[in-house]
Amino acid sequence: MLYEINEKAIRLENEGKKIIRLNLGDPDLATPSEIVEAAYAAMKAGKTKYSSAYGEEKLRQKLAKIHGVKTENVVITPGSKWGVFATLYLLMKGGGNIIIPTPYWTAYELMAKSIGAQTKLLRTEMEDGWAVDLGKLEAMIDKDTRLIILNNPNNPTSKVMDAKTLDGIVEIANRKGVTILSDEVYGPISFVKTKSILEYDGNYTHILSNGFSKMFTMTGWRVGYIIANKQLIDNITRLNQITINNVPVFIQEAALKGLEMQRQLTKEIKEEYHERANMASKTLAAAGLSFTKPEAPFYIFPKRKGLDSEKFTLDLLDKGVAVAPGTSFGDYREHFRISLTAPRDHIKVGLEKISEALR
Amino acid sequence: MLYEINEKAIRLENEGKKIIRLNLGDPDLATPSEIVEAAYAAMKAGKTKYSSAYGEEKLRQKLAKIHGVKTENVVITPGSKWGVFATLYLLMKGGGNIIIPTPYWTAYELMAKSIGAQTKLLRTEMEDGWAVDLGKLEAMIDKDTRLIILNNPNNPTSKVMDAKTLDGIVEIANRKGVTILSDEVYGPISFVKTKSILEYDGNYTHILSNGFSKMFTMTGWRVGYIIANKQLIDNITRLNQITINNVPVFIQEAALKGLEMQRQLTKEIKEEYHERANMASKTLAAAGLSFTKPEAPFYIFPKRKGLDSEKFTLDLLDKGVAVAPGTSFGDYREHFRISLTAPRDHIKVGLEKISEALR
Repeated sequence: MLYEINEKAIRLENEGKKIIRLNLGDPDLATPSEIVEAAYAAMKAGKTKYSSAYGEEKLRQKLAKIHGVKTENVVITPGSKWGVFATLYLLMKGGGNIIIPTPYWTAYELMAKSIGAQTKLLRTEMEDGWAVDLGKLEAMIDKDTRLIILNNPNNPTSKVMDAKTLDGIVEIANRKGVTILSDEVYGPISFVKTKSILEYDGNYTHILSNGFSKMFTMTGWRVGYIIANKQLIDNITRLNQITINNVPVFIQEAALKGLEMQRQLTKEIKEEYHERANMASKTLAAAGLSFTKPEAPFYIFPKRKGLDSEKFTLDLLDKGVAVAPGTSFGDYREHFRISLTAPRDHIKVGLEKISEALR
Repeated sequence: MLYEINEKAIRLENEGKKIIRLNLGDPDLATPSEIVEAAYAAMKAGKTKYSSAYGEEKLRQKLAKIHGVKTENVVITPGSKWGVFATLYLLMKGGGNIIIPTPYWTAYELMAKSIGAQTKLLRTEMEDGWAVDLGKLEAMIDKDTRLIILNNPNNPTSKVMDAKTLDGIVEIANRKGVTILSDEVYGPISFVKTKSILEYDGNYTHILSNGFSKMFTMTGWRVGYIIANKQLIDNITRLNQITINNVPVFIQEAALKGLEMQRQLTKEIKEEYHERANMASKTLAAAGLSFTKPEAPFYIFPKRKGLDSEKFTLDLLDKGVAVAPGTSFGDYREHFRISLTAPRDHIKVGLEKISEALR
């Protein structure tokens, strides 16, 4: 229901209604002006042509250096979403199943469904701090399991996976010969140390998906990347050639500019969201909701015993606040997701209306 | 081999070699500065966020008006290539075959292959003026045929389909219940009148694919559109939601600017390419090549009896000129494709080297 809510919110706005948008991970902060200027300079320099479906050499080199891999292990994608879709499309063609811990990012299951791959959902609970039960994971893997999708830090819980659990998941995956696709788009701006899948991966058995949307407030620019073994990178590139062709070069130059300023830009973004998370936590706790403390931007995933979050979400949208129902992230009807991606005063009003609606 | 040639050309250029690039339909002309400025203004105005997977309302409305359809029949795609892929992905899921007249744009068959759809190639010959034989087409349609892909004007021949043949194809398709996907990216800048599939289509039985790449020299911007029945538009939008999400809004604003200046911009582009086509035709005829007169930008698809165009193309690339072998467009080993998308002096040198190599 995540996308329906969004399209409905857009429709209401087009009709002139004022909607406080806490439903998407789309930051209110502007894309840093240095990034905008880099894109403009590239456009004016004529970087408006077709280009390599691998992505620009300079950007791939920079990412390779940051992640300690070779340039041949990097492909640029129009958003990390396309990177995940392309990976699933290529790896799941022959059938098989994918294990996804829940709550999860809606798009994973919709992609799997579209491609015709089976999904097996591995439930985690707020009461357990959203930890994956390793015994359950191992028992779930069967001969047709080809992929485990991790989202670390997690959307919608903003929980960072503890290193020990991740160690355990990787150990099981390696032993069972299952590939991990680790979507780490919130990693570079998490509030606590986040261990990357690449820290395990001498042979590129596993796959990293990442993007610039969250890191540099570039959501609408659509630029991300996959790091994987050369064969998968080559195959994604061939898929790029017959689908999206290439990410506009001026957008890749803009992303490169962001990387050159990474330390400064991510520091500002982290600080802002950390404060928002603290503010929201106080209000939501006061409203009697339970949740785990956000360890990354942008989400809180509170629970209210007995809540029907789909009904709650639709009612709330009519009152001018868009959030996402818990059912968009798996079987979590009592939860809903708040995105702290609006200006602080909007968030404040939004949180008040949420508190009211729950009274 | 089209994409391999291109990646090799890029590699050679990265190594510092000078390559005359006549291998892609990527115009040397700059994107008009008004379009660049519109994108920049939109970026600065903060149009850098996630947006509707349908595309921007204003752009869809404008396109609907131009084509005489409803806004609900338009979806914006990251390049017309994505529009074609998405259509094939959605319509061919259940199996079946696609009829494609040849010579054809390489990507169609690669897409079909990737998706797992069968293709049936309907050969046309230069000696017949590249006309589709209606009897052969009808005989080729079987109970599993779901789609006919037309590319009108055609890449690589730059031939516009005569209205009578198109009438015949539509009549057969309607009678047999087969959908036509008409890729008309070269239509708005063709040198002769080009009849659109939409002129037949009261009920949106058929599908139009188009884009801004060729029309406004916006190849690297990746923006195009599909016009079809509402159901397909909704389904492409749902696929967009889990893949590319949306075309950057600032790019859509740039495309809209182009449409507002359409008459002026396409006039200039048409005139330039018409002159290039005339110039190239003279040189190639003098070199003893046969071809049909280009009726649209950007290509000429000459033939030399006994030519092995793959060998010819690779040898020519080592001599600093990139063209595309005829085998990239179907079983046309004696042909090769020249793109007149380089500055005139480059084209001149390129044509001379081609003439030399054929001696």
